[in-house]
Order: sequence, then C-alpha cells, then structure tokens
Amino acid sequence: LKWLEEVSRRYQLSIVTEVMSEFDVEPVSRVAKWLQIGARNMQNFSLLKRVGDVGRPVLLKRGPSATVDEWLASGEYLLASGAERVIFCERGVKGLAGPTRNTLDLATAIHMKNTLGQPVIVDPSHATGRRDLVVPLSKAAMAAGVDGVMVEVHPDAGIALSDGAQALDFQSLAELVGWLEASALK
Amino acid sequence: LKWLEEVSRRYQLSIVTEVMSEFDVEPVSRVAKWLQIGARNMQNFSLLKRVGDVGRPVLLKRGPSATVDEWLASGEYLLASGAERVIFCERGVKGLAGPTRNTLDLATAIHMKNTLGQPVIVDPSHATGRRDLVVPLSKAAMAAGVDGVMVEVHPDAGIALSDGAQALDFQSLAELVGWLEASALK
Amino acid sequence: LKWLEEVSRRYQLSIVTEVMSEFDVEPVSRVAKWLQIGARNMQNFSLLKRVGDVGRPVLLKRGPSATVDEWLASGEYLLASGAERVIFCERGVKGLAGPTRNTLDLATAIHMKNTLGQPVIVDPSHATGRRDLVVPLSKAAMAAGVDGVMVEVHPDAGIALSDGAQALDFQSLAELVGWLEASALK
Amino acid sequence: LKWLEEVSRRYQLSIVTEVMSEFDVEPVSRVAKWLQIGARNMQNFSLLKRVGDVGRPVLLKRGPSATVDEWLASGEYLLASGAERVIFCERGVKGLAGPTRNTLDLATAIHMKNTLGQPVIVDPSHATGRRDLVVPLSKAAMAAGVDGVMVEVHPDAGIALSDGAQALDFQSLAELVGWLEASALK
Repeated sequence: LKWLEEVSRRYQLSIVTEVMSEFDVEPVSRVAKWLQIGARNMQNFSLLKRVGDVGRPVLLKRGPSATVDEWLASGEYLLASGAERVIFCERGVKGLAGPTRNTLDLATAIHMKNTLGQPVIVDPSHATGRRDLVVPLSKAAMAAGVDGVMVEVHPDAGIALSDGAQALDFQSLAELVGWLEASALK
Repeated sequence: LKWLEEVSRRYQLSIVTEVMSEFDVEPVSRVAKWLQIGARNMQNFSLLKRVGDVGRPVLLKRGPSATVDEWLASGEYLLASGAERVIFCERGVKGLAGPTRNTLDLATAIHMKNTLGQPVIVDPSHATGRRDLVVPLSKAAMAAGVDGVMVEVHPDAGIALSDGAQALDFQSLAELVGWLEASALK
Repeated sequence: LKWLEEVSRRYQLSIVTEVMSEFDVEPVSRVAKWLQIGARNMQNFSLLKRVGDVGRPVLLKRGPSATVDEWLASGEYLLASGAERVIFCERGVKGLAGPTRNTLDLATAIHMKNTLGQPVIVDPSHATGRRDLVVPLSKAAMAAGVDGVMVEVHPDAGIALSDGAQALDFQSLAELVGWLEASALK
Repeated sequence: LKWLEEVSRRYQLSIVTEVMSEFDVEPVSRVAKWLQIGARNMQNFSLLKRVGDVGRPVLLKRGPSATVDEWLASGEYLLASGAERVIFCERGVKGLAGPTRNTLDLATAIHMKNTLGQPVIVDPSHATGRRDLVVPLSKAAMAAGVDGVMVEVHPDAGIALSDGAQALDFQSLAELVGWLEASALK
C-alpha cells in the first residue's frame, strides 16, 4: 500500500487496486482513487456494502460463472450503497475445459455496453492465463467496441511472483498501445 | 440444390453447402465445391467418412460442446478419409445461460490458428443468434487474426424461413465489408 | 452383428445395439429388437428418420450438452418418423472439468420421468468413466426412482478393447444386482 | 440471532448458521456451534481466515462453479487458519440451462468422500430450487453413500420469505426421514 501511495504521488497516477477484506476498505480508500472488487468477491455483499459506503468509483469484475443479471445486481447493489459509479470488467467465465483458463465472453461484454448501456472493459490476461493470447484478444475487444482493456504487465515475467504466464513484457505492451492508437486515429 | 447449381453457373461462384445425410454426399458434391459438416454432425463419423471419400475440401463446424482435441480429431478423421483439406469454423459453445444463444470462444479460435497452425474462420451469427452482435464480433474476430468470418444474410430478415433474428441485411453487410477492406489496407 | 445374432438365438435375449450409420439401419434391425441412438448422434436427424422408419423401439441417449427440450425434440422426431416407442437414457453432460468425464445429471432424469412422464434410464458408466463410481451412482439412480440403469461390464476389464476403465467385473455386477433386488423387495 | 440462541437453549439443539461478514464472525460464534460458509463466499479468503480463527467446526458449501481442487483448497485454508474440522457440502454447480437451478453433482460428492476421504453432505434444495426433486435426490444421495443431506423446510412454504419453492413441508420431511431410517436399518 505504501508503494502504491508513493507511485501515485510521484507520477500523478490514479490508483485502482483490489479490496479483499471488509477491514481493508478504509485504509485502501485513503490511497486508491478507484476500488476494485475481484471476481471471487463479486457476490460478497458485505464487502460490496462497505465499499459502497466510502463513495468511490468501483471496478467490478465479473464472477467466474456469474450471469448478466447477477453481475448487474452486484453493480446496482454498489450504487445503492453509495458507490460513485461502477465500471464492469469481463474476465472470462468457466466453461468447457479448454486451452485457456477461462472463456472470454466478449459477446456478453458488448451486450452490457450496447444493449444495457453500461461501461465495460475486458481483462484478457485473467480470461486466458496465456501471454500469447493477450494481444490478439485486446485488439478483438477494442475492435468490438468495449471501453478499454486491462492487461497484466511485468518487466521480467519469468520472475513474477504471481500470474507470470499471462504477463506482457514492456515491448509487447508498447506494440499493443501502438496498435490501439493507430486504430483510434481512423 | 438446383437453385445452388444455377447460381453457381450464372455467377461463377464457388458453392459451400452443408451435407446432413450420408445419402446426400454424392449428389451434393456434384454441385458444391466445398462440403460443410454442421455442428450437430461434428462427431457423426459415418458421415465424416463418406464426405472424406469424395476428396473435396471441407468446412468443419465445431460441435456445441466439443473440446479442441475432439474438434481436431474430427478434422484428422476427414483428412485420413480423403478430404482435400479442412477449414475449422468456430460457432460458439454452450455454457452459462446468457444473453446469447452460445458463447463465441474466440480464444480457442486463435489457439487453433496461432498455436496449432490450422485455418480457422468464425461464425458470429450462429454463435450469438442476434443480428446486433454480428458486426462487432466479426470485427473482433478479424482484429484477432482469424482467417475469415461467415455471416448469415437475408434481404428481408423479417420473412426469413429460418434464423431470421441473426441475419444481416444488405446494408449492414456492406458496412461490414467496408470496415474489413479498410482494416486490410492498413 | 453375427455374434449378437447367435447370442440372441442361443439365450433368447432381446438385443439392443447402437446404429451409427444410415446404411446400417436395415441390417441391424434384422438382428436387434431395440435400436440405440448414441449421444453423438442425438441430433443426426437423417439417422433418426431412418431409424424411425423401421418401426422399432429406440433407446435415445442424451447428447453431451443437450438441453431437455432438445432431447425431447429428438424423441418426438423418432416417434413421428415411426418408432414404436422411445426410452431416454441420461449419460452425463459436459460441464466443469472435474474428477469425472461428464457430470451425471440425475435431477434432469427425474424431471423427465416425474414431470414429463417419459421412461428414463441412467448410464453411470459413460457419465463418469470410472468403475468405482458406477455402483454408488446406480444405487442413487434407482433410489431416485428412474426406470433402470445401464452399466458397462467386462469379464476382464484390463484387456477390454474400449472403455475398460469404466467396466464392472462380474462380481461387482452381482453385488449391484443383489442390492437392486433387495431394494425392490421393500 | 436471538431467536437462534433461544431455540438452541430450549431444545438443546446444536446450531449451524451462515456467516456472511467478517464483522459477524465473533457474535455468531457465541451462539452457533458450527459456522457455515455460503457458496458465494467459498473463495472469500478474508472471511475464511477469520472464521478459522475462532476454532469452530465449519460447514463449507461448494462454490457454484468451483472445481474439486478449489473446494479442497478452501477447506485446507480453513483448517490451516484454525478451524476444528471441515464438512463439505455439495449444492449444485452451474451448467447447462435446464429444468433445475443448478446441476447436483453427486459424482463429485462421492469422489470427495470415497477417493479423497472427506466428510460430505448434499443440499438438494439449493441444487434444484424445486420441492418435488428434493426427496428423490435426498434418497439418491444417501443411497450413494454420502454422510448426510441438508434440506430446506418451512411449515407453510407459500408464505416463506425466501426459497419457498424449494422448501419441504413437515409431512414430506417426515416421509423422507422415515425412508432414511428404514434404509439405515437394512
């Protein structure tokens, strides 16, 4: 938390970070501008209530088998508890055992945005667990019209403490950002 | 079949059409250049064998809950039976009840192409059953790098005998084709 | 097929066996009293039609991701094509990767029987792929009130050409039959 | 909570009840002998830690799409945090949209008990959401050899505040208990 605070001050960055315990809501909200609810806590309503209480914007990850209705219900619960706004993040659902950890459900992300009018971003890192699929799926998500992507990055993924297999290095990140900028200019 | 034959002659178009019965393989192969195996028949090995026998290229749709290994096995069975080549078509898998008929599994399509080196196209019409999602998902698939998309089109979807809810009209098709051409030029 | 014919004559047994090709319907129906449609062919309507034509009773396995409506529709298609009657067989659906090959969906089997009034049996061998689960799940299915179970048996499973890992030996079969008889007497 | 305390004293019953917030662990543990972790909180590790801290036995429901490994990991986390013991409760997993709310995964329950040696009970009320399936599935679970069942009961389900559609009335409960006793005598 201290590191995040320092980074935030030094680079004038807004911080979004995950809150995992009801007891952490207050200290985390002193440092982070945005609070994130992780997929495993999407239906932890005690945590949602307390996060709503501090009145911040919230990034709400979709649970690994949550339906659209359940996902929306958690978002509405946050807003009713006082959250400033809610951004929804699709990060893959469980399904058939396959070559990826989860199944990125891009159609539902677009449905959330186009049909239901909610702000939606996509997390291809957790959806697949595979670095080589992060760039193609990020391009796919942006071409489909979602509001953003969220990718895991590590300067040296080989020594990452967690989720190394899905982290982009700086060069891949730069290429992805370049592609996104070029697309946006069209 | 006669209509398809006439269209083929008049416009010099290659025809790809689905074979649903072992008894139809021979007559259909006299008209169509490509034979298509539908999702429900992906593991109908009697049909696969007979289709392989006529030595044509085959478009092999993924079964609604087929794993990558099962899909590949059906493709190999076709090749071993004599098919000239096999193109794989991702058309959505069954999963969580959701806003779409099936869940388009774009990550697996990219895995088939990039990791396994197989030619892959995507069918967003059957994957979603919803006209409004066909264009965004077609753009997504092409941006992710698949070899093509296959979309349902009807001049007046309101009177279509089947699958009207997922059919594009000519104007939407033209817009999609325009976008694809612009992307390809980059 | 010859072996089945001989066994049928010698022991006065009714034979039920699977038809996998439209071309096999006629020869198989000369030997077997019952025709079986395998899970992978549940929606192979060309085969269903031809099987219906010969007017025999049919054992219809549920497809690996078929909904109740799809399963019923295939049964009705058989009856409309001339099948004498249809018995439905639940054999597990695809789901979460887990300790069993498929997920035995006993609740749906009971729904088919109690709510929809259809005759239903259960196949715990294919549902699990594991010999040690066949007896407990057979007892479960019978206690829940289905019409029967169908189990894979092999005198020496270690040398079975297929599905050895899920086959009961004669002793386990005898124990299961003993339990079923004791339950039925109550 | 007061009602539970009074019932506990008056009838000498052990109470098991669900803890949904980290702040409730201490007050609930003063009344209930057993603490229950609900399906939606199976991976709420902050809550698991705090529940483990009070050293009580815990009833751990399976998450709606949890794999066996994830379920076991949560159980081990509870034990490592100090829980006296852990009983696992299978309550259905999400899968195909079907006639039941979830799919009761009896095979996995038996695997947990027979192969992994863990104590397991089954909750057919939440697994199906349908009163008419609770008795058949309870019989099935007991015949398969699990350690117990947990059923929702309400004297007048029509006026239940929640989950009325899946609650047994007293007469159905009595019949079920009678069947279980008769089976146990065999």
